[in-house]
Amino acid sequence: MVTFLAGGTGTPKLLDGVDAAFDPAEVTVVANTGDDVELGGLLVCPDLDTVLFAGGGVLDRETWWGIEDDTTATHDELQRLADAADLDGPSGSRTRSDDSEGHGPSGSRTWSDYDAESVAPGPRYLPPDRQTAGRRLARWRRFSGVAEFMEIGDRDRAVHVTRTSLLDEGHTLTEVTRILADAFELDVALLPMSDDPVATVVHTQEGAMHFQEYWVARRAAPTVEGVEFRGATTAEPTPAVRDALDDPVVIGPSNPVTSVGPIRALPGVDDALAEVPVVAVSPFVEDRVFSGPAAELMRGTGLDPSTAGVADAYPFVDAFVLDVDDGTDLDRPVVRTDTRIDDETDARRVVRTVADALAEVA
Amino acid sequence: MVTFLAGGTGTPKLLDGVDAAFDPAEVTVVANTGDDVELGGLLVCPDLDTVLFAGGGVLDRETWWGIEDDTTATHDELQRLADAADLDGPSGSRTRSDDSEGHGPSGSRTWSDYDAESVAPGPRYLPPDRQTAGRRLARWRRFSGVAEFMEIGDRDRAVHVTRTSLLDEGHTLTEVTRILADAFELDVALLPMSDDPVATVVHTQEGAMHFQEYWVARRAAPTVEGVEFRGATTAEPTPAVRDALDDPVVIGPSNPVTSVGPIRALPGVDDALAEVPVVAVSPFVEDRVFSGPAAELMRGTGLDPSTAGVADAYPFVDAFVLDVDDGTDLDRPVVRTDTRIDDETDARRVVRTVADALAEVA
Repeated sequence: MVTFLAGGTGTPKLLDGVDAAFDPAEVTVVANTGDDVELGGLLVCPDLDTVLFAGGGVLDRETWWGIEDDTTATHDELQRLADAADLDGPSGSRTRSDDSEGHGPSGSRTWSDYDAESVAPGPRYLPPDRQTAGRRLARWRRFSGVAEFMEIGDRDRAVHVTRTSLLDEGHTLTEVTRILADAFELDVALLPMSDDPVATVVHTQEGAMHFQEYWVARRAAPTVEGVEFRGATTAEPTPAVRDALDDPVVIGPSNPVTSVGPIRALPGVDDALAEVPVVAVSPFVEDRVFSGPAAELMRGTGLDPSTAGVADAYPFVDAFVLDVDDGTDLDRPVVRTDTRIDDETDARRVVRTVADALAEVA
Repeated sequence: MVTFLAGGTGTPKLLDGVDAAFDPAEVTVVANTGDDVELGGLLVCPDLDTVLFAGGGVLDRETWWGIEDDTTATHDELQRLADAADLDGPSGSRTRSDDSEGHGPSGSRTWSDYDAESVAPGPRYLPPDRQTAGRRLARWRRFSGVAEFMEIGDRDRAVHVTRTSLLDEGHTLTEVTRILADAFELDVALLPMSDDPVATVVHTQEGAMHFQEYWVARRAAPTVEGVEFRGATTAEPTPAVRDALDDPVVIGPSNPVTSVGPIRALPGVDDALAEVPVVAVSPFVEDRVFSGPAAELMRGTGLDPSTAGVADAYPFVDAFVLDVDDGTDLDRPVVRTDTRIDDETDARRVVRTVADALAEVA
């Protein structure tokens, strides 16, 4: 058995080649849920869905989110309606919540610092009192669907409707994820990191904002001052996740701050990782990142945006997989390969290297 | 000024010709909201939407609900996912809520009588404790979106997302309806009957069920024993509705039980109707109904399913518009025309006759 910790792009890309070295029936994937949002009443779980759609063979591999060749009729009409009714831009009530709970490693500002007037148009947060009302799992990340700031495809939306309705029927997110994994005929076991709410809030020079505002709406432009995993200190990893963390662990080339960070912020996870063999694939070649906002987020949380910084962030990692062009000198075993993953052949190569590294330290 | 009371088909058809006798700027339409449901987290208001879409020129005039030439990508995928995950059919938790509040004129059984095992597949009610949790306006009519028992088109869905999100942002249904009416450039004023929850529950020989289960899922097959407007006794007509009921009122050829009944069940509405000139268009030609389940519902609530029964149900009506082939002898003034409405020409003819009838009694 082996367990992968997954964010939204790097590790799902790696998982494309998982059967090069592992039996998929023996693989568990624990996905970050700190990026999740409730949008227009639907719980959207981007990192779970990327694994789900990739495994189901329907992922849009241009964007690494959403469903290939999906239509956007509802999304387009949401924009049209918002324009026609002059509703575009931030909600008048999008802003100030002063409830704060669970600070991450470098959180210092709070949600209430967020200044709505400084940015427009953008996401419409539900009013502060609604952020902690309604579905418990949606706490601190409830957005209005007016003008829908994240593009949700029509088939994609059906996944969110099914998930949200199954939650409302009384299932846990873990149960719902298993049901959806069945529907997509996933060959690995997919687990959300927790059945409790955890919201990744990015504190920036322009105020605090949910990760999806920072990443999707603001395109990582605001200067990061800290990252908070709201709810993490009182959230629990699920029993299934605790079990999975008894097996050797692979951390793919994911963003250590907002992809792996929320999982690590859960009580007991770092301790569990210290007890088992862990191999990590660097998302950098020295200080050049493959994709995403990892560099900005690492810099903003006091980490060097580089392979060296990743190694500093991961004291529990027993061996690293680095790119052949990455000469970083680390204090732990290193196995090198070409770590760029553009297709399944690349993924299989890196997976084989991960297995080699695990064999060295297991 | 003139006020129309509207259900889902008869009165919207009549409104197509409203400018034959009235200035649309002087027309208010009060729509039934007892048929509304929350489906997959979205508040769906069929009667409001038919007026909205007809006025906006986008109504599907084959079905008289939904948007013309709409796609159903999300709906189809919801069905596929439910099939793939073996989720089709009623939810195990669809049934028994023993909370009951606000009985209509003939309610005798309660929601808790509803026997899930007797019908399958069908709508998935959220569990009893969720029926009165979440959005207040959705009380007693909260359905899971799994397998989506009502077909929601993709553009149509955007209207429900916008409405639901605006409610969640803190607007009333009255305010949201005005915003949507602006977006669809409606030329009449459209009002929901109330900003409070009212749920039309049909009590049948097969148990109690929400009107949309009775009508959409069961196609009016169960024998009706009574109709309850849950919440009506504590709901309020809005101030805008109260004002509108100071003007002459037109009741189009709508179902008197579940289209007009919920409006009348609100405190003070019948008293208000007794004080102003009211003209009603019979939805029957003697005992032949134009469309919908009016006959079954009237029979089940102790009314004769005929023009005579409609007149008995409407003691406050001052004059009736009947079909030329309807020889019913009534105790109040009658003006006759061909009351079948298949197109705008028909609608304009009936509207002119309504105006004639109003002139007789105003």
